[in-house]
This record gives sequence, C-alpha cells and structure tokens, in this order.
Amino acid sequence: MLYFDSDYMAGAHPEVLKALVDTNLEHTVGYGNDQYSECARELLRYAMGVEDAQVMFLVGGTQTNATAIDGLLRRHEGVLAADSGHIAVHESGAIEASGHKVLTLPQHDGKVAAEDVASYIHKFYADQTYQHMVAPGMLYISQPTEYGTIYSLKELESLSKVCHDNHIPLYIDGARLGYALAAEGADFTLRDIARLADVFYIGGTKLGTLFGEALVVTNSELLTHLFPLVKQHGALLAKGRLLGLQFEAMFRDGLYERIGRHAVAMALRVREAFRSAGYEVVIESPTNQQFFRLPNEVIDRLRERVSFDYWGPRGQKYSVVRFVTSWATTEECVAELESILR
Amino acid sequence: MLYFDSDYMAGAHPEVLKALVDTNLEHTVGYGNDQYSECARELLRYAMGVEDAQVMFLVGGTQTNATAIDGLLRRHEGVLAADSGHIAVHESGAIEASGHKVLTLPQHDGKVAAEDVASYIHKFYADQTYQHMVAPGMLYISQPTEYGTIYSLKELESLSKVCHDNHIPLYIDGARLGYALAAEGADFTLRDIARLADVFYIGGTKLGTLFGEALVVTNSELLTHLFPLVKQHGALLAKGRLLGLQFEAMFRDGLYERIGRHAVAMALRVREAFRSAGYEVVIESPTNQQFFRLPNEVIDRLRERVSFDYWGPRGQKYSVVRFVTSWATTEECVAELESILR
Amino acid sequence: MLYFDSDYMAGAHPEVLKALVDTNLEHTVGYGNDQYSECARELLRYAMGVEDAQVMFLVGGTQTNATAIDGLLRRHEGVLAADSGHIAVHESGAIEASGHKVLTLPQHDGKVAAEDVASYIHKFYADQTYQHMVAPGMLYISQPTEYGTIYSLKELESLSKVCHDNHIPLYIDGARLGYALAAEGADFTLRDIARLADVFYIGGTKLGTLFGEALVVTNSELLTHLFPLVKQHGALLAKGRLLGLQFEAMFRDGLYERIGRHAVAMALRVREAFRSAGYEVVIESPTNQQFFRLPNEVIDRLRERVSFDYWGPRGQKYSVVRFVTSWATTEECVAELESILR
Amino acid sequence: MLYFDSDYMAGAHPEVLKALVDTNLEHTVGYGNDQYSECARELLRYAMGVEDAQVMFLVGGTQTNATAIDGLLRRHEGVLAADSGHIAVHESGAIEASGHKVLTLPQHDGKVAAEDVASYIHKFYADQTYQHMVAPGMLYISQPTEYGTIYSLKELESLSKVCHDNHIPLYIDGARLGYALAAEGADFTLRDIARLADVFYIGGTKLGTLFGEALVVTNSELLTHLFPLVKQHGALLAKGRLLGLQFEAMFRDGLYERIGRHAVAMALRVREAFRSAGYEVVIESPTNQQFFRLPNEVIDRLRERVSFDYWGPRGQKYSVVRFVTSWATTEECVAELESILR
Repeated sequence: MLYFDSDYMAGAHPEVLKALVDTNLEHTVGYGNDQYSECARELLRYAMGVEDAQVMFLVGGTQTNATAIDGLLRRHEGVLAADSGHIAVHESGAIEASGHKVLTLPQHDGKVAAEDVASYIHKFYADQTYQHMVAPGMLYISQPTEYGTIYSLKELESLSKVCHDNHIPLYIDGARLGYALAAEGADFTLRDIARLADVFYIGGTKLGTLFGEALVVTNSELLTHLFPLVKQHGALLAKGRLLGLQFEAMFRDGLYERIGRHAVAMALRVREAFRSAGYEVVIESPTNQQFFRLPNEVIDRLRERVSFDYWGPRGQKYSVVRFVTSWATTEECVAELESILR
Repeated sequence: MLYFDSDYMAGAHPEVLKALVDTNLEHTVGYGNDQYSECARELLRYAMGVEDAQVMFLVGGTQTNATAIDGLLRRHEGVLAADSGHIAVHESGAIEASGHKVLTLPQHDGKVAAEDVASYIHKFYADQTYQHMVAPGMLYISQPTEYGTIYSLKELESLSKVCHDNHIPLYIDGARLGYALAAEGADFTLRDIARLADVFYIGGTKLGTLFGEALVVTNSELLTHLFPLVKQHGALLAKGRLLGLQFEAMFRDGLYERIGRHAVAMALRVREAFRSAGYEVVIESPTNQQFFRLPNEVIDRLRERVSFDYWGPRGQKYSVVRFVTSWATTEECVAELESILR
Repeated sequence: MLYFDSDYMAGAHPEVLKALVDTNLEHTVGYGNDQYSECARELLRYAMGVEDAQVMFLVGGTQTNATAIDGLLRRHEGVLAADSGHIAVHESGAIEASGHKVLTLPQHDGKVAAEDVASYIHKFYADQTYQHMVAPGMLYISQPTEYGTIYSLKELESLSKVCHDNHIPLYIDGARLGYALAAEGADFTLRDIARLADVFYIGGTKLGTLFGEALVVTNSELLTHLFPLVKQHGALLAKGRLLGLQFEAMFRDGLYERIGRHAVAMALRVREAFRSAGYEVVIESPTNQQFFRLPNEVIDRLRERVSFDYWGPRGQKYSVVRFVTSWATTEECVAELESILR
Repeated sequence: MLYFDSDYMAGAHPEVLKALVDTNLEHTVGYGNDQYSECARELLRYAMGVEDAQVMFLVGGTQTNATAIDGLLRRHEGVLAADSGHIAVHESGAIEASGHKVLTLPQHDGKVAAEDVASYIHKFYADQTYQHMVAPGMLYISQPTEYGTIYSLKELESLSKVCHDNHIPLYIDGARLGYALAAEGADFTLRDIARLADVFYIGGTKLGTLFGEALVVTNSELLTHLFPLVKQHGALLAKGRLLGLQFEAMFRDGLYERIGRHAVAMALRVREAFRSAGYEVVIESPTNQQFFRLPNEVIDRLRERVSFDYWGPRGQKYSVVRFVTSWATTEECVAELESILR
C-alpha cells in the first residue's frame, strides 16, 4: 500500500528518533528546564535571527493555538481568522472553550486578505453598537493554509502592517511551516516569519518529530507569563527534554529544511502525475498537500493500492481527494504512484 | 551522580522504547484509531476485568485531570479533593480554567477520609444557603497520594460507598497507580480500582512510558462524548498510536507490575537506609516516594553525590527532602546510596 | 420630540410601576422565593397551559440567553443560530465566554429555515472529521427576529420537529415575544410557543417592565439545577420580588397582550405612513420594529423632530432606518409623525 | 412581625423610588449613556474626590465581583480573599466560572491581615514549584466584612501598601459600604477608600436602591474596556438610567450617608438590647449586622413576633442568629424588639 493520507501517519524521522534513543537513559530535570531544550531554543533563535525570542515547546497544534490565543486576547476580544481556518473548524471549539469568539473572514484559496482585515476592523469601529460586539483582538493565519496554499512575502507584509496599524498582534499557525518555507515559489524565509509575526509556532508533528510544536514569541510585550499559561492549558510535558531533543535534531544540521524540500518535491511529482493523467488539480498548491478532482470509479480503483484522504463529493460522479507527502514519502513510493496513474 | 529527584527524569523503559522504534516507519491512521491503540485498550480492559470499559489515551496528567473533571461536572458543581491534592495545588488552576471550583477537604497523610466527604455533603445540603454555593459534584482522590501514602481497600470501599450513596462519581488520579498496586501492604488490585471508581487513569509518564495516561471510564453513563472533549482540551495526540504502543508494551507481559514492584523495592531500601542511619522518616510511605527530615549540613553533603528533591525547611537546622525511585533506579545506585549513608 | 428609537427608552408601564410602588415598604424573602414571584409563576404557567413548567425570573436578555444556553449545552456542543441572531452578534461574546461556539446558519429575513438546520446536522455527522468539530447541541431562534419578522406556526412546528428528530432542544429568545404574539397575521399562541420550544423566555424589558425576563423550561429533563446556574451567571436578583411583581402585573389582566397589540397597531400605522409617502419598506415586518430606506436628506430633516435608529448606509444617498414602537408610543405621537410625513 | 432578616427585604428608600416614578415616562438612550447616569457618575466622582474615576453601574453584587475580578486578572492568576469572603463561599462559583481560582487566606473576624497577604505572596514565589501554581493576582476584601466587622484606616493602608508593593491591585467589595462608613468607630472616609483601593464598588441594593452597584475604577490603567466586559458578563442593564437615577438620589443630598447612619444606630440599639438581656454578642460588629448566641428556646419564642436569620447551631442548646437593620428598620420596630427582650 502507498500512503498519502496525511503527514502524521508514520513515527519520527530516523534522525529525530535516534536523538531520543541515544539519550533515553539520561536523567534530566523536567518541564523543559533541561539542557537539550535550552540548546534547541538557542538553535531556533539563531535560525530565525531573533536573539531574545521567547521559545516554548508544546505537544500538539490545537493546544498550542488555544494556549497562545487565550494568552494574547483580553476577555472582550475575539480572534480574526479565515472561515476555513483550523481554529474555526477543526479544533472542537478549543478557542471558545477558553472564552473567545472566532471572528471569521472569507477565505480566498484558504487565505485571508489584508483588505478584508482592514475593512472588518474599520466597519467594526464604525458601527454604533460595536461596544456590544466582540472586538477583533488579533489575527490568526496559517502558513501554509489548510488548503496547502501560501502567503507571499508581500501578502505577509500587508497582513503584518494592517495588524500593527490597528494595534493587534499577528499570530501564525505553522503546523506545516516547513512545507511553506520549502514551497514552490516561496519568497520568504523563517526570518521573515519571525519579523512579521508577533507570535507563531514551528510545527514538529507534521514535519518529522513524534510530536511537538515550538511556540515563538518575538514581541517581548506579549505572553509574558507563558509557563503557567501552558501548564494551565494542560500543555506542559513532564519529560520536556523529549521536545528539546527533537527540535535540536531538526534544527542542528538543517534537517527541518531537508524534510520540507523533500516532501514538497514529492508532492509536486504527485501533482504532475495526476495532471498528466488528465485529472483536475483543484487548488494550485505549492506545498505538500495536493487536491484533485477524480471520477469516483478512479477513486475506487486507486484505493486498492493507494491510501489517501477523501475530501468530499463534487456532484454525482466526482469527488475531491487529498494527497499528502512527508519525510516518510519515498521516491519509490511516488514512482509507483506515477506508474499506476500512467 | 545518583538520581532520586523524581520518576520522570529518564526517558522510557527500554521495552517501551523498543516498541516505538520497531514500528517507527509504519503508517497508521491518527488520533488513536489505529490497531495498536485498540490492542492496548483490550489489554487494559482485560487487566481490570471490565469488558466494556471506555479507555482513552491522553498525553499528561494535568490535562487528563482537567479533561475528565470538566466532562464529569455540571456547570454549577465543583470537585471535592484533599487540600494537598494535585488539582488543588500544582495544576496552575487548570480545573478553575474550565470553570469549576476545587472544594478542599483536610488531608490526613495526603488522604481524604470518607467521613469528611459524608460530612461535607451533609452540611452542604443542610445549609439554608446552599443554592448560593458550589455543589459537590464528584470526589477526586489520588492513589497513591502526593505524599506517597495509599488508601487501603477498606478505605476505597468507604469512599466509593459515600460517593454512590450521594450520587456523585469517584475519580481516581492514578498518575503513580502502579506504585500503589505494588506498595508494601497493598490489599487491592487494579480490578478493585476499576470496580470502585467511576473514572480513573492509569499513569504512564511516571511508570515508564515517555508520556501518556490511560483514562478509564467504567461507569457507562459518564463521559459519553469523550473524543471531542479530549480534542477541545488540546489533549488529543495526532500520532495516537504512540500512546497505544507504549501501553501495549506496559500491559502485554506484566511490565507495568514489574516496574511498580522494582521501584517500590528500591524505595523501601532507601527508606531503611535513612532510618538505619538515624534519620527521621517523615511520612510512613509504602510506595516509591520517601520523605526524610535531615539536618541541613547532611543535605549539603549528600548533594555532592546525590540528586534529590528539596521539600521545605523544618526550623533553622532541618529540612524535609523527597527521594523518588522508578524503573530507572538501579540496584547499584541504591547500594551506593546505602554505602554513603552507612 | 417624537421617540421611535427603541422599546426600552421609557420606564415601566404605569400599571407595572404601580405594583412596585404599592408594595415598596413590604418585607419579603429574597431571590424569588416570595409570594409575588410564586404568583407570577402560576399566572405564567396558566397562560401557557403547562402546569409543571419551571419558571425563573432573570434581569436582562443577554444574561438570560447566556445562562440558559450554558445550562443546555454539554461542553463539546455549540448552539445553532441565524448569523443575524442576537447571540451571534450583539452579546459581546457572552456565549463564547461560557465556553460555547455559536454555529451560524444563513438568515432569511432574520429567520432560520428548518431545512438548513436539518442539512447542517446531516452534513455535520456525514463529515468524517466531525469528532474534531463542534457538535450542534441546540437551536436558538428569536421570535420575533432581530428584523421584526415572525416565524409562522408551521415554521415553528418544522423547527421543533427537526430539533426533536435530532435530539436537540429548541430554545426561543422571546425578548420581544409579546410583539410576535400580537403581530399582524400571527397564527400561533403562547401555548404553541410553550408546546414547541423546550426552553424559551418571555421578555419583560422591551414589553413594559422596568427590567426582567421570564425564563421558562417546559421540558422537565432540562435545566434541572437552574437556581445555582442563574446565581453563577450573576443573574440572580436579590430583591427577586421586583421581578415577580412586574410579571404578575403583566399577566394578571392581560396587560402583556394589550401592550403587544397597541405597539403593533402603532407600528403598522407608522409603516403605512412611510409607504404612503413613497418610501421603501425594507423588510415586511408585522411587529413593532419597522425598517425604511430613506434619502439621507429626508433623514436629516426628520431628525429635527423625530428620534429613531440609524441602521446603516445604502449607497451614497440612501440609508436604512429603524422605527420602533412600544407601550409608550401614543396615538398622538404617531398622528404627529403621520402629519410630518404627509 | 418585626423584620431583621436582611437589608434587602424591602423595596427602595422612598426618595429613591420617587426618582424612578417622577421620570418614568421620559425617553432616554439606553445602557447608561443617559444624562441621569452621567450626573450620578459626576456626583460619585465628587463624593470620592477622584475627578477622573471610571464609574459604571451594574445590577447586583455577585455579577459586579465576577465582572471586575475577571477583568483584573490575567489568565494564570487567582484572587486572594478571606476564606469567609463572599466570593469564596456564596457566589455559586461565579469567579471560577470565569476561569479564576479563589486563593483563600485565614479570616480574623472576617478580615484579612496584611501580614498574611505579604506572607502568602512571599512563600508563593519562594516555592520552587510556583510556576505550577496559581499566582496571586489581586486582593479582594469586603468592607464591611461578611461578619459585620470593619477594617480600620490603618488596616486599609497596610493592605493597600502590601498590594502595591507586590504590584497587585486591591479590590474592595462594598456591597454594604455605606454601613462601614457610618460604623461605630469608623476612622475612614469614602475618599480614603477611593485613594487606597484600585477598584471597588459602592453597593446600592443593600443600602436603599431597588438594585444597583456602582463599580469604581480609580487606577486608570485597569479595566480599560469595561463596557464590553460588563455586557459580556450579562451585567449591562438596557434601561441604564434606572441605575443612574437611583444613585443620583442616593448621592445628591447625602441620602447614602443618612441611610448608613440610621441603620447603624438601629443596629447598635439592637445589640445593646440583647446584651442587656444577658445574651452573648458573638462578634463585636460596629455595623448593621449583629450576631448573637441565643438559647434555642429563646429563638423559638422570638420567632413568633420577630423575623431574623438563623446562622447555625452552637452545641445542643444554643444557636447563633443574625439581626440586620436597614433604612427600612424604624425606631418603632427597634423599640418593640427592646420591649420584647426586656
């Protein structure tokens, strides 16, 4: 069977796993106060070029979003997000569970437009009844988006500007950030992300760690009491070094970039294979998630040898499917898919 | 250096780690819907003798407590707990963050007395103003307690009875449950725990997994929508099989029991060594946590070769310290401590 | 000046105020346990034909919605509502502050369609990822709606059916319920409302009391611990008899109906006056709120003698305005408006 | 029957009620933006000598506490309070419902000692595990306390100092503040309260309004978005002028002080009557609440002619009762009680 369901189906990249195995019998203090975690924080600060960035490792994406957003918003504020945003749809109400409304904006290929943000805020404060409504207190975007698309540097700059002009922080959900950085046509770097966002996270789970997300705060006025907030959200790992070790492995020798580049290269080959075979590419994604519209009978036939994600029906005879690549997607695997489609 | 600080300082028991390494390259579905997790659930159901128990794997203890308690209580209810209980002190307000008050009872060697529970509930409903107060909606106990002590079978039966007589569930925090089951003088089994509690968890993190806690619901009327609740609390691991694999390793061949017995045996030797050396054993703990009152100069001298937990001063010249054992505490390590103390 | 801004600009209907004045020096127990409150509850039960309905008096609408919805939903559930619904827009996130998402449906003249509810629920459970999303746990509608429109008996029956077929309660926000009952063409009674909804409230503030909303629970399995829930939400009035007295005045001799009929009659005259003068009636509202599209210069001229609500611009030269009537809108006042418009 | 149960059993002081009646037919804008509310805010600012104090009127005490405390605390913080404090006992968990823990300190005659606050904060940050605990983020005291006692000026100054030395705000629950200001031996003024507290409220409900509490913020950095916070907590009254009118009546001609003095004078006569009759005064209260230890048969006999509050048993034969006075307690009423006791 060829696996293209998602980027969290295998364990950890072997180099990451090796770091865990090699240190398994060591004793260290807990909760991220160990040397490995400190080293990983330093490597991340160096990689993004922000010496005094606050870095904290959490376990999963939903908990990282919920913790950061809860810490960033005041009680009367909500978070702006695309209506397709992960926090708006697939986090079981974790944001609302902390008391905050998700204020949705229309998505364009999964993205939020800076003009829409500006317009929302403008209209909000122009409304005579705005004091009875939920104030937009921050902007959430995901890079890449849930549809695999990416914001260009210019778009990121516009979003950052509109946020800061309106005195709200920009938060970037980087669950798959490595695939955005390695995307076809990507014109931004990790340093740009760190410069333009106030808070963001560098996802590990979907990039090659067993689990783990690195929450980064570059605006020193924000999230000043992150440790108890993380603990309160149930997001503090006892054996915190496991997170440090994995991120150290990812950022010591460029593994994070290599994984991103590999997965994107595999994804583009998959896209090309489907396109060549005459199928419609639904979203022009430059990252590791690809979306195709296939006849249902093709889907049934593919299913015998390939595992992938069913996205939803398009009329009676067609459906959209998602193919995802990762570090665990081998060249052989893609070649076999190509031969099946040929 | 000899390490006795805590039971979460090393990685995973080698057999547990092996399970992760051996399966690392496999692809499985996420969120605990994989075969390994199902197998682990079956092993746990068998071990506790409850065929239809609901079992769900979460990552850490605070999040497991917060999720379960939030799901068990109605909005106007609080949770009864010892004033030394973990949820009352060391969880950064995670219970309150979900909207629920912790109603504290006096601890006796870390334990809650059934009479105190009965008396609290009786007085509560006898008070004419009780409708203005937080109703006791469940009881939380930890087995073993934060002080290393254990509830006897009779005590557990009394607590279970007082809860059920008053129509509130009994919840047991089993972060270190394996050490209670293996405790000196323990007269209860895992089956007793499953029979007497409505909901409880079997801790992995402190028993030998990298992380992971198995939440068990034996009362089928409770926590009927656990999956979205866990997700909402940010406690759902994407690569859920990692939890299943670890608990499978723990429960397939009795590893969980072996680890408990080993750690307790080591702890009792440590206790005996301190007692023989003439030092005061502060709490008569039969489990893997031991508490001693030592002269401060002894503490300073020990610190050169031994790492342990400082608990707090007792007057000018003495302090209480905690020594904790685990699967990672070797016989050699304990022998060396004995020779230091001799 | 002629006042048509809203229905909460004057104090209380004189008969209601008289009840407060006449009893002012009496001593009664607090929190709604007095005789006046009990009497009012009985009058309401009689009026709606549900002998064992639970009735509790709260102070304001937002708090009544937040309290009831919080009590009706389980933690993982959200509330379905029109995207124009009061809870979705104008309650400052009070629903989310209690931890629950508002799941919006498209509004049609301010109303939710039963097919949209059915379709939402169907699609929700058909989605493979629904366990990661917020489950629809109840339906909120307002009768009349925020746009002054009303659900017909058939529409209410359809909504009630779709809710009960799907095992979720139907909650009706009756902030202005009296105006719906007296609406032009209304084919339902208070008894129908009580029969079709599981929980609803009969608004006082906008109908002629100083303040106060009567929360009614006809489904005896729901909101079984209402008193502490109301207290916890800060919605319990110490001098609870003030609420009982006002509702007693409203329901003893049909005052509630008289006020509704009067205000609707005045509103229809206002509508006719604008229509006759050639202005566009924006929404065909049969209740006490009327919406007109006026040239901006007409608005400016009217403003000199009439006070009303500005709703928003429609292009460069036009705007929509809202005219609202109440018990305090006199025939003279409407006649004067008519003469201004003639 | 003579009524001494509580200070919220009658309606409003006649002068307050008159203000409502006289203006009943006027039309004003809602939500406290009217002239009466503005006038009341000015009168309060003048009375407390703080020109730029933020003043907002809410409906009841529990909701005022919950709203203010929720707005003052950050997510990881709790509120320090006496274990007898209203928020710790009798608010149905309203503070926890907003996500915050109440951190209790021992009460001394209902009061918190400055040394205990200092010591709590000192020990908290000295504890190595404090990052896992709930940080003390503010201090709540009630003046007078739930036991009728008052803090002296010196005690208030000490509490204010210890708070500000530790960078946390001091919040005073003034549900019965007027009785403290008029207390026997009171050596502080409203200006002192305003100077020493950062946020406090001036209670109306228990002093002579139908309802209403004036929340005052003198520290301009705090609660900067009070309006939406109040709305979100369901505490915003639509016909806000009702609150303004009542507080205007209370503060225009010294009615607030007169009511306080009258009730305290009546309470001291009641105390003297019980003492002269040979009964034990349980708490030496200088305000309108008095506590006596009476033989149960005396209680039974008194009950035939007097209504008062049963506080709880003291052994088999005695109980503690509470007698409360207010503006509605007449000289005749007290004289009759005296003659009964003589």
